[in-house]
Amino acid sequence: MIQFFAPDIKSTATLPQDESAHCVRVLRHRAGDEIHVIDGEGSRLLCRILDPNPRGVMVEIISSEIIPPSWDVNIILAVAPTKNMDRMEWLTEKAVEIGINRIVPIICTHSERKVLKTERLQKIAVSAMKQSLKTFLPRIDEPTPILSFIKEITLEEPGKSAMKFMGYCDKEYPLRRLIQEYKPGKNVVIMIGPEGDFSPEEVKKSVDAGFIPVTFGDNRLRTETAALVGIDMIHFINATANINK
Amino acid sequence: MIQFFAPDIKSTATLPQDESAHCVRVLRHRAGDEIHVIDGEGSRLLCRILDPNPRGVMVEIISSEIIPPSWDVNIILAVAPTKNMDRMEWLTEKAVEIGINRIVPIICTHSERKVLKTERLQKIAVSAMKQSLKTFLPRIDEPTPILSFIKEITLEEPGKSAMKFMGYCDKEYPLRRLIQEYKPGKNVVIMIGPEGDFSPEEVKKSVDAGFIPVTFGDNRLRTETAALVGIDMIHFINATANINK
Repeated sequence: MIQFFAPDIKSTATLPQDESAHCVRVLRHRAGDEIHVIDGEGSRLLCRILDPNPRGVMVEIISSEIIPPSWDVNIILAVAPTKNMDRMEWLTEKAVEIGINRIVPIICTHSERKVLKTERLQKIAVSAMKQSLKTFLPRIDEPTPILSFIKEITLEEPGKSAMKFMGYCDKEYPLRRLIQEYKPGKNVVIMIGPEGDFSPEEVKKSVDAGFIPVTFGDNRLRTETAALVGIDMIHFINATANINK
Repeated sequence: MIQFFAPDIKSTATLPQDESAHCVRVLRHRAGDEIHVIDGEGSRLLCRILDPNPRGVMVEIISSEIIPPSWDVNIILAVAPTKNMDRMEWLTEKAVEIGINRIVPIICTHSERKVLKTERLQKIAVSAMKQSLKTFLPRIDEPTPILSFIKEITLEEPGKSAMKFMGYCDKEYPLRRLIQEYKPGKNVVIMIGPEGDFSPEEVKKSVDAGFIPVTFGDNRLRTETAALVGIDMIHFINATANINK
């Protein structure tokens, strides 16, 4: 199945220009063809092409269904952007494929990258959503100073009620801490620091705000690997709990 | 900690040329400095530099210890090389970081890539081993036709006694099948097909040889994502079992 992404499909019945060009010029769709369109907010619409205009394909909406995510908790990843931008792009793709609700790039004292253009990450997220047959587009925040993020996330739902974990290099906090402490069904915030780790002040403020320090394995993992393993663990614990219900 | 890789360190007490140049020219080590050297077979040696020759650093071995892997089962990944080589390189890096014993590129009927140079994957594996503080270098096979692999893996240990799973797109086989069937502590072979999936003959021969078809999630995952999630699940099931012991 190929999914086209058109956030305003319900009000405009038209595909955006890039999706239109892909639909008509690359995939050679014609008037009368049926296509699947997602709105990034959970709906997948079956549409029939009325006008195959490569600058704006006009469609008739035949039917619409809500496709809920395959996971039932809210997963927020706060991650210090990696020095190498490729690694951040890769993480975005994989997080969306596996399942994520929101990605917040956090700027820390020891961050090697303090500037980040989120436009390209947005495009990667759209592409991964389409490819992995999802219908929800995760939110990608603009880069946020870590202390602002910690303050904000504790004030509003779903962050307020979420369990909060921080990946921290100190050997004192082993993998088992996440496995033992995470309660299936709970919303979750996973925070991963930069290559140079969190500063002592950042650790203190996070712990004061309810973050539980963990490592995600007995190995030294790169930032983006730790983030992905953390997300995967949450999915896995919930999937196992659902099976054992 | 920085680890230098010298497979013949025990017999030669000398670093290979590329590691020597890195040690002396980049890291500016001098005679008398102590460095950590791994042999890729489980040993980490504390060495003192005698001659900081950038073409072959000569050392005196002070002490040697065996660092066992942090996981206690043998994990073999057989994976159809992705069309995009970057994705295969990325998978190699991440699999080594998370923990893998052997990677076998398998050539399938529907493979979009049937030729693969493993030299670059070897380099990536060495780099990931050093970076994640491991001491064992996973084996990376030359590309192997899938039917040869299936035959070979069932004849010799550890493949012979391993549980064998194949990631197969058919919706009939859900995630829970891996979670329910994998027995912690067992060696495992995970086989992931190409973008175009396994052929019916490949599925039949695999199932006849004892492979259990599974999917690794409710999402449509790319080949390299499915492979990584599969490996991660095995680590996670074993880690959870070890905690509950």
